[in-house]
This record gives sequence, C-alpha cells and structure tokens, in this order.
Amino acid sequence: MARVGIYGATGYTGYELIKLLVRHPQVEISFATARSAAGKRLSDIFPTLIDTPLVAVEEANLQDVDLIFTCLPHNTPDLIPLVQQALEAGKRVIDFSDTFRLHDADDYERRRGKPHPAPELLSAAVYGLPELHRTAIREARLVANTGCYPLTAILPLWPLVQADLFADRTVIVDSKSGVSGAGRSLSLKTHFGETHETFSAYNVGRVHRHLGEMEQETGLHIIFSPHLLPVYRGILSTIYVTLKPGTSSEMVHEAYNVFRDEPFITVLPTGHFPELRHVQQTMDFVLGFQPVEIEAGRMIIVSALDNLLKGASGQAVQCMNLMLGFEETAGLK
Amino acid sequence: MARVGIYGATGYTGYELIKLLVRHPQVEISFATARSAAGKRLSDIFPTLIDTPLVAVEEANLQDVDLIFTCLPHNTPDLIPLVQQALEAGKRVIDFSDTFRLHDADDYERRRGKPHPAPELLSAAVYGLPELHRTAIREARLVANTGCYPLTAILPLWPLVQADLFADRTVIVDSKSGVSGAGRSLSLKTHFGETHETFSAYNVGRVHRHLGEMEQETGLHIIFSPHLLPVYRGILSTIYVTLKPGTSSEMVHEAYNVFRDEPFITVLPTGHFPELRHVQQTMDFVLGFQPVEIEAGRMIIVSALDNLLKGASGQAVQCMNLMLGFEETAGLK
Amino acid sequence: MARVGIYGATGYTGYELIKLLVRHPQVEISFATARSAAGKRLSDIFPTLIDTPLVAVEEANLQDVDLIFTCLPHNTPDLIPLVQQALEAGKRVIDFSDTFRLHDADDYERRRGKPHPAPELLSAAVYGLPELHRTAIREARLVANTGCYPLTAILPLWPLVQADLFADRTVIVDSKSGVSGAGRSLSLKTHFGETHETFSAYNVGRVHRHLGEMEQETGLHIIFSPHLLPVYRGILSTIYVTLKPGTSSEMVHEAYNVFRDEPFITVLPTGHFPELRHVQQTMDFVLGFQPVEIEAGRMIIVSALDNLLKGASGQAVQCMNLMLGFEETAGLK
Amino acid sequence: MARVGIYGATGYTGYELIKLLVRHPQVEISFATARSAAGKRLSDIFPTLIDTPLVAVEEANLQDVDLIFTCLPHNTPDLIPLVQQALEAGKRVIDFSDTFRLHDADDYERRRGKPHPAPELLSAAVYGLPELHRTAIREARLVANTGCYPLTAILPLWPLVQADLFADRTVIVDSKSGVSGAGRSLSLKTHFGETHETFSAYNVGRVHRHLGEMEQETGLHIIFSPHLLPVYRGILSTIYVTLKPGTSSEMVHEAYNVFRDEPFITVLPTGHFPELRHVQQTMDFVLGFQPVEIEAGRMIIVSALDNLLKGASGQAVQCMNLMLGFEETAGLK
Repeated sequence: MARVGIYGATGYTGYELIKLLVRHPQVEISFATARSAAGKRLSDIFPTLIDTPLVAVEEANLQDVDLIFTCLPHNTPDLIPLVQQALEAGKRVIDFSDTFRLHDADDYERRRGKPHPAPELLSAAVYGLPELHRTAIREARLVANTGCYPLTAILPLWPLVQADLFADRTVIVDSKSGVSGAGRSLSLKTHFGETHETFSAYNVGRVHRHLGEMEQETGLHIIFSPHLLPVYRGILSTIYVTLKPGTSSEMVHEAYNVFRDEPFITVLPTGHFPELRHVQQTMDFVLGFQPVEIEAGRMIIVSALDNLLKGASGQAVQCMNLMLGFEETAGLK
Repeated sequence: MARVGIYGATGYTGYELIKLLVRHPQVEISFATARSAAGKRLSDIFPTLIDTPLVAVEEANLQDVDLIFTCLPHNTPDLIPLVQQALEAGKRVIDFSDTFRLHDADDYERRRGKPHPAPELLSAAVYGLPELHRTAIREARLVANTGCYPLTAILPLWPLVQADLFADRTVIVDSKSGVSGAGRSLSLKTHFGETHETFSAYNVGRVHRHLGEMEQETGLHIIFSPHLLPVYRGILSTIYVTLKPGTSSEMVHEAYNVFRDEPFITVLPTGHFPELRHVQQTMDFVLGFQPVEIEAGRMIIVSALDNLLKGASGQAVQCMNLMLGFEETAGLK
Repeated sequence: MARVGIYGATGYTGYELIKLLVRHPQVEISFATARSAAGKRLSDIFPTLIDTPLVAVEEANLQDVDLIFTCLPHNTPDLIPLVQQALEAGKRVIDFSDTFRLHDADDYERRRGKPHPAPELLSAAVYGLPELHRTAIREARLVANTGCYPLTAILPLWPLVQADLFADRTVIVDSKSGVSGAGRSLSLKTHFGETHETFSAYNVGRVHRHLGEMEQETGLHIIFSPHLLPVYRGILSTIYVTLKPGTSSEMVHEAYNVFRDEPFITVLPTGHFPELRHVQQTMDFVLGFQPVEIEAGRMIIVSALDNLLKGASGQAVQCMNLMLGFEETAGLK
Repeated sequence: MARVGIYGATGYTGYELIKLLVRHPQVEISFATARSAAGKRLSDIFPTLIDTPLVAVEEANLQDVDLIFTCLPHNTPDLIPLVQQALEAGKRVIDFSDTFRLHDADDYERRRGKPHPAPELLSAAVYGLPELHRTAIREARLVANTGCYPLTAILPLWPLVQADLFADRTVIVDSKSGVSGAGRSLSLKTHFGETHETFSAYNVGRVHRHLGEMEQETGLHIIFSPHLLPVYRGILSTIYVTLKPGTSSEMVHEAYNVFRDEPFITVLPTGHFPELRHVQQTMDFVLGFQPVEIEAGRMIIVSALDNLLKGASGQAVQCMNLMLGFEETAGLK
C-alpha cells in the first residue's frame, strides 16, 4: 500500500479526491489537511458517511507519505514553500493549481503580468495529461494537474494538429461549465439565487487564465468563451474549426485513432454528440463531431467531461497511478 | 404622490420592494440606502434595468418622506435608533425584521432568551397582516411586516379557530421554502453546490424563531418543520389538523368564507391543492384542503405563497396602501 | 376595445399570450380555442387563476373579432385554410408558426425540400419584427411572428450589416435555450429526467429550420448551434463575428445607435453582457459586445431575450398594437 | 457466475439495475428485454457507454437463467403469466411492481377495489425487505421488491413498534420525492416545464397505493402525503409520531440498535438529519430524529434514501445476493 497525503481536503476537488482514494485498492490516506475545519471529520463537512479525520497543516507529517496532492486555492502563498519542502524531502507532488502548468516562465509572466514565483520548479514540472505525456508523468517529481476547461479543448484539438488538418489556426471554443467549477468558496457568483435558473457568459475572448494551457498544448490560437450553467457537475464545449478544404469525416476519425486504446476517451460516430449526462460522475471524456461544410473545411466538435473527475481529481489519481507504477485505471473504473 | 424611503435596498426583499414601488402609481422613491453598494445604482447589483441610485444611510433625508421601509438584516443594532428617530420625526414605519411582531415583551423574552430592546415600541406596533388587522394597520405608526413562513400557517388556521372547529389544538405544519427565504447574504447554506439537487429539513420542532408569530395570531400550539427546496421563490406548507369529529368539507368552506372578499386569497374547491407555480411572482395566497377521515376530524391543508411578494415586499406595499389611504391593491395587480 | 381571437390556447405561447391580453387595456378576448381541453377553462390547464373559457374551433366565431392569433403547432394542416378564411373575411392575422416567414417560395422549397403550401399567402406576409419592419407591419393583413432563436441573431447582426462593418460574412451563432422553447408537447426531450441537470447540443451547423429567417433578414451566412439549457425560459446567444480590421468599440456603438429609441432594446456598455435573469419574464432584448482582437476585427456579441415574450407572444402583441393603431408598448410594460 | 434475465430494461429501474449488474462480480446478464427499443442497445437509449443488447420478450430464453427481474410497468397484463411460467420452470423471480407486496388477498381487494389476479402467487411471495425478512428472502421463489416511499416509513417505524414505544398508533408521514420516482413514461406531470422550479402535493391522506405496504409491515395507521420535488433522485420523509410520555432519546437509540449491523442503514446522532445529498447515488438509508416535547412523547424523524438504489434496483440486487447465496453487499459497495 502506498501512502499519500492531501493538502486542502475541504474544497470540492479535495472531497472528490478522498472519495476516490478511500476506494483505491493500493493506496491509503495518511493525512488530509484543512484550515477552519481542522479537528473535524470529512463527514462533518460534506454529505458523506466517510469520516476521514481533518488535521491542521502543522500536524501533517510529510515523512509518512510517498506522494502528496496539493488542492489549495489558486494563489495561496503557502503553496510554493510546501511544494519545495516536499520535493526536497524526496516526496512526489501532484498540484491542482495553475501555478506549474506553463513550461515557460516568460510565457507565464507575459500572460499573468507578473514573474513566476518559482521558475526553477516550473521547468521541472510535467503537464499532467496522461494521453499526451504519459511517459514523462511516470518519472515526474512534480505534476501540474490540468485545468478542467483546457482539457475540453486540448483533447479534441491535439489529434487534428498532429494530423496537420488545420487550414485556419484560430479556433473558437465556446464552453459551458457547471457551478462546481467555481469551487466551494462563498461568492455571489455561486449563490443559489444568482445562479439557478439563469445562464451567463464571463471572461470572454482572450482573457481567461487557462487560455495559456490550451495554446501551449495545441499550438493553436484560441478564442475562448466560458459560460456558467445552472448544473453542478460537468463541462461541455462546442468548438468551431476550419480545416483544410475537403477534410472528410473519415480523415477526422483517422486522426482520432491515436486515442483508440485510451481507457477514458470515447469518440462517437459522426454526427453524434455527448451531453453532460454521459460523463457526470464518471472518468469518461466523450467527443463527437459534425462536418458542416466540407468544401469550406468547417467542422463543429462537441466535447464533455466531469470537471471534478476527468477534469480534476480523477485525472490526478490517473497520474498518481502512473507515478507509483499501478495499473493506470486502478480505483477509477 | 407620496414619498417613501427604503433602508436596505440590496437584499432580496429590498430589491423586490423597489420593483413594486417604481410601478406604483401614487408613490415615488425618495431614497434607497445601501452599505457597501452606496454610490452605485440598483442595476449594478441586480439583473434589472431599473437604475435607482443607492445612497449611504447618512445621505438619506428622513424629512423628505412620508413613510419608510426598513429592510435591514435581522438583529442589526442600527434598527432601533432608526425606527425611534423616524417615529419622533412623525414618519410612519414598516419594518421587515422580526423585532416588532410579538405584542408581549415577556413572550419575546421567553422565546428569545433575552429582553426586548425597545418594549415601548413593541406595544405600539401592529402586526402587518391586513386580512386580520386591516383597521389597526390604517392608523398604525409602526407596522411589523409578517414573516413569510408564519403567513402560510396563520391564514389557513385562523378562520378555523374563529369557527371553533378544533378538537386538538396541537397542529403540525410541515413547510417547504425556496432558497430566497434565506436571503442574499453569503453562506454555505445558500451556495449552489450545497442547495441544488438536494432537499433537507432544519430547525424542526419547536425551535424556529417564527413560531411565536404563528402561535400569537392563532392561539394554537404548533409543531413546525421547515425544509429547504431547490427552487428560488415560494413556500408551500402542508398542515395536519384534528378538527371536531364529523367536521365536513362544507363547514370548513363556511369558515373560510371570511376571506370571500379578500383580493389576494383564493380557497380552492375541496381536494384541490395549490402548487408553487400558482403563486410565484404573484401576490396570491392560495389554499386547498382535504378531509382525510371525517369521523376522526383529520384534515390536511396545503397553502402556498410567494415569499418575496405576499410573504414580504408585496404585503408591505399592501400595508402601505392602507396606511396612506390608497386603494389596497394599488400597484399590486 | 378591439376584439381578438386565439387559435391554440393550450401551448406555452398561447398561454403567455392570454396572460398578456387579459391585462391589455384596449383589447378583449372574444374566444380562445383548444382541442382536447375544449369545454374547460385556462385555470384547469395552467397554474393560473385566469379562467378564460376554452372552446372548440367550431365554436369560434370569426365574425366577432378584428384580429386573430394562430398559435397552432408547426405543420398543422388546418393552418392554411384557417388563415385563408380569416383573410377573406377581412380579418387580420398574426401567425406564430414558421410557415410565412420566408418571402421567397423558392427559398422555402430549397430549404425545406418541399413546395410551399400557399405561395400566394407567402408573398403577402410581413416578417413580424417591428424594429426592422415597423411600417409594413402597420398595414399588414398577415404577419409572420418571428422565431425566438432567429431574433437573438438578427437584432445584433442587422445594424452591423447596415453599417457595412463585416469583413467575413460567415458568422457563428452559438445559442442556448430554455426548455419552454421546445413547447408543451410530450417528448423524452422535455422529460424532466432527460433535461434536468444536463446540457446538450442538437441540430448543429447548417440544419436548423430557423436558419432561413436569420439569413433572409441579415444577408449573412450563418453557422448555428442550438443547445438545450436546464432552465425554463430564455435564450442566450454567443455570436462570433469578424469585422473589418480596426473596427473599434465606438464604431460598433454607433451602428447600434439605430436602436436608440427602441422601447424594448438595450445595448450594454462595452464589455458588459446580459444574462438570462435580465430578460426572463420581460419584453427586454439586451445585448452586449466585446472586441477581442481589434486588428483582426474579432468581436464577440452576447444577446438574450425571453423566448415566450420578446421571442413570441409579447412580440405578437407588439405587432398587434402597431396593426390596430395602439401605442406600441400598450400592455407590455 | 450466476445468469440473470431482466424484463423491462428501458425504464429507470431497469436501467439502474443493469448498471449495477454489469459491475457485479458474480453475475452475468443473459438477456434484457424491451418493447419498442428491441434490437437496439442500452447506449442508444440512455446516456451511458454500456452497450447491453435489448431483445424482444419472445427472444428471451428463460432456460438460460437462474433468476429473473421483472421491471414492467404497474398493471401490465403480461406480468402474471410471465411470473407463473418462470416459477414453473424452476426459476426465481424478483418483481418490481406492487402486485405481490401485500400478503392477504382480501386486504388487496379492499384497498384496490378489485380481486387480486393471482392469489396463489400472493401467498407464496416474500416482501423483499432484507432488514425485516432476511431469512425468508434467502429461500423465496418469488420476492416482491418493496416500494420506494414505503421504505422511508417502514424502516424508521418498525423498530419503534418492536420496542413498543407508541402512545398513538396514528402516524403522519410527509414525503418528498424526486421526479425519477414517477418513472420514464411521458406525462405532463414529468414534463420539465411542469415540474422544474415548482413543488406540489398529490394523493394526500389515505389514498396512495403504497399505503398498504406501510401498514402491513408496521401495524400502524398512517396518514401519508407525497410531494413532488424538482430533483431527479431521492426521497426524504418527515415523520411525526406520538410516543409514550417520557420516551427519551436514549430509548429511541436503543430501539434502533436492531439495525447496528445492517450494512446499509445509518442512524445519526440525536438532532442530526439526513439530506438528499447524503444518499443520492448510494445504497445508504439514513435516518435521524429529534424529540420535540418529551413529556408529550412528540418526536420528529427524518429518513432519506435513493429511490432508484436502496428504494428499487439496489435493494433488488441485495435480495438477489441473499437468494443466490452471495455476500449480501456484493456489487453494492
């Protein structure tokens, strides 16, 4: 049994992670930290019968574990020292924030408007997307778990880039996310009365903080419009691409053939599309596509995932399985 | 045109009140106060095109108005001085809190566990339920706008008390409320992820703070279980009563005949029940009942209202109309 | 008082229409027809206290009325004879179906794959969009009430066409609609269990039956992806356009200036977007836009309306007001 | 590996059953029948990647299986012959309808107003509630899977009956169910537009068809009010009992001690209540209680389950495990 620790167990991703790990046949949770909830149990905080104890960060003993998951809020100042300390102690780290996802410190600075807080860690980190970086993840000391929105664009677009099918490298990604994507922190944006029975766009165009990952992994120029859905789990993205004139449905299926042995990716027959219900509460990433005007190369792709599983905690377990030499799907089926 | 002022415009009741008042033919809003939003407009805060300016409390001029509405959070220390000051200045007051709803300071102290902060105001206040206290409201200087839950019990029960139909004066009120009843303040209880697609009971039995109003107005002994519904507006209460053996459907309809000229109350035919959709976004209070076992006197009543209109801001306007000598339904149809 | 008749009162658009007409100061409802519900009252079918009687078509007397609304299901064979009969009797007609929206019978045949059933009526009909065809509507005998999706594209795009701002005449319209857009007929698509807590795309690309209206009114080439939201009312469309290089925010606002006196259209400041809550239960059409890359002419527009009011029944009343010489906003504010 | 057959795979309970059985380590599905969907696969009908083939009833071979599940709509005339044929062929049967739940044919006739169609089967059937009838289920040829509403009353009340704690044997059960309880058949009652964002009571009092089971298993007299919640899964019941004066919290916990080794039942500490989120997508039955007025014996109990798992398909698998000699929790954790 491997031993793991979780920093930040009371957000939605921490909670989902614990639910996966308690069922995992080869792992045991050594500690799970919380701030205001330290001293309580998981079942005091969430609607679950799992009663994992929550401890203060000071009580978590790094020496007890082989690997840690850091599920702290974006921009927590504690993150960098914690990661450094863990790596120095020879522990492996899977981080859920967007701190280590870009490879290039200059790119980070240009996009965020401030220098990266620990460029030496940045260059060591591996982007935690097994379908693209499986070999590197196996060996990685520090894995940057991917963003949930970016996955819905990267996985459908990367095979088409590999197959050199693009005529226009500008791509429109119109994404719709459930509310759990905004986390469990209190804000009017996630207040029932401001979210239920409505729908809205936000941060449209070129400004969302996760645009960088999408462009890094695909090499494309992306126009990205996120929207907030009145559902709890799941992201569905509708993607508009202009491929080379005459690109057929068969050519696209052939490009997606690179995913044929992937345990968590399903490509639907032409003209079929996933809906959120297909993927909620699962690790499945499902995509479908429809050529719209073949001579003009116009195609629409629809992709969907559960943002808390394949889009966050489940994918982190997939990475952990690779890092610790387990079956890649262990605890995830 | 009468002139009114609103203290506390950025909660849900304040917002609904402004929406009603801007359409009211005989009233104009002289000021609407806010704390953190002072200096902004209503349309900056809510999804509305109404652009009423929001001012700090210090900028609100009591001399400008005939009547004020105080829509401040429960237990705000500013409330008592504000009400005193307004009454001394000869202004009339409709208060939305539960501070002035009980007539008896001893009853207040027994139920709340602390003395009433201004007993002299308590005895002057009128309980703002026009169907029971229309005459007193017309003359009142200070009206205590009713609670939303209590109305769903008082209106169906009071006529049966008047008609002396009860065999057992203990009544079970099982209430289900939309989330807007919990207000716009941030709390996990109103976070989308904790409310959506779930349902729960809270404060069951004899502990809810609005039990006192129900018992004061009906003289009954009430077991009250509130529940939180994943809808935005509306309360539906299912009420279990034991009437005198042999009480017939006709006798109950006769008791409800006291409401026959009420503009906002509808009693459905026997065996028909309201649902939330009947009353959402309206001033209608709708009730239906079903004798279950006539020999045993068992009857079930279902009542429904929109908690923000007949249960709060609309009823406040109804009281204002009485106080200012307008048509009782002005601005409410 | 003008007298009107409604054919098809038990669908969602018929119901909304009656709710508007009973409050309209210059109109009275002479009859409202239903099929299986004939003999009942509106309050037997819908959660309303409005008790308009529902009669069989045979009992509706065309001679009693000045104008009829036909709110029948798409493709009802009864529609054409009914419209012909009404026009011959000198009555004016507002039709809710998509039968009379295209001007050109050839265009209709090409898009639908079958000849138009009454081309002579087609050429007489006026497309019922007051903001574009106000003068023609005033005189029209037959008005084709617009589709709800098309409006969300036509109103934001037409001013930019007028101002000759397009560099690329292909436009992407990604629309998200509440479930009421699918009507009240029973289908798995509108079953709670298949719609709630999910989200899906359908008929993407070039296949939706309302594409023709959008292209006719704007002269643009449109890629259209409708999606089904788990909300009841409202449509929000996110629109991706490529304007001439260097088109500034000011130039776009100037183009939208054509709407400055429109009672039901609001253009938000640059970078602000409507959400569904702004428009639900109202006649307001709200749009906002954001230049994304000015040199490349890329812009994103977001528009929103209530599909049952500005998108259907409210707009029909707006047309009726024009046709009968009333104030355009009568009964709609 | 045991082999099982499913009759009626395209309702919600059939679908949930297949999802459980495909993961069950000791069972394989020999056939799953459908009517209009025969010839398709499960993944054509539901949002799942499970592609179990659906066959017509005529193609299902009873000889292939050890046990069948009959998940047919209530009152299907085919049910009785099918069950008879299976029992004669020596197969065991778990039936999901309410046909075999009452032991007494006279009681059935009195409650339903018509004679039981196969009284000889009725007397052979075992009520499929393992917590009360574990031994009988192991040996049963025909198990009547329980109703979902009844469970929420029987499990909390039966231990209190055993402990002889009741002062008044009339009990009020106020239940709130998600929409999936109404099944997948099309009706206005389950249309999104008639269910979403509303709440209603139906069949209140003494008329619901599942009252008989509750009274048979508890021996109490029950007043039952079901309500329809705008959620998909789960039932929460609020139960009002009058126990013997002075019944303490400890005495109640002692009565519930009979459940201490039950794998799927959790009794919360006094004053804590389940909410739907605790039980959705799980086999857990959770209950909590609160003494309200101890001298008067008044107590409120809240119970919750997932109507499709512990309330239907999961419980059927629990029964199957007992019947086939497997670990009771196999495939259910």
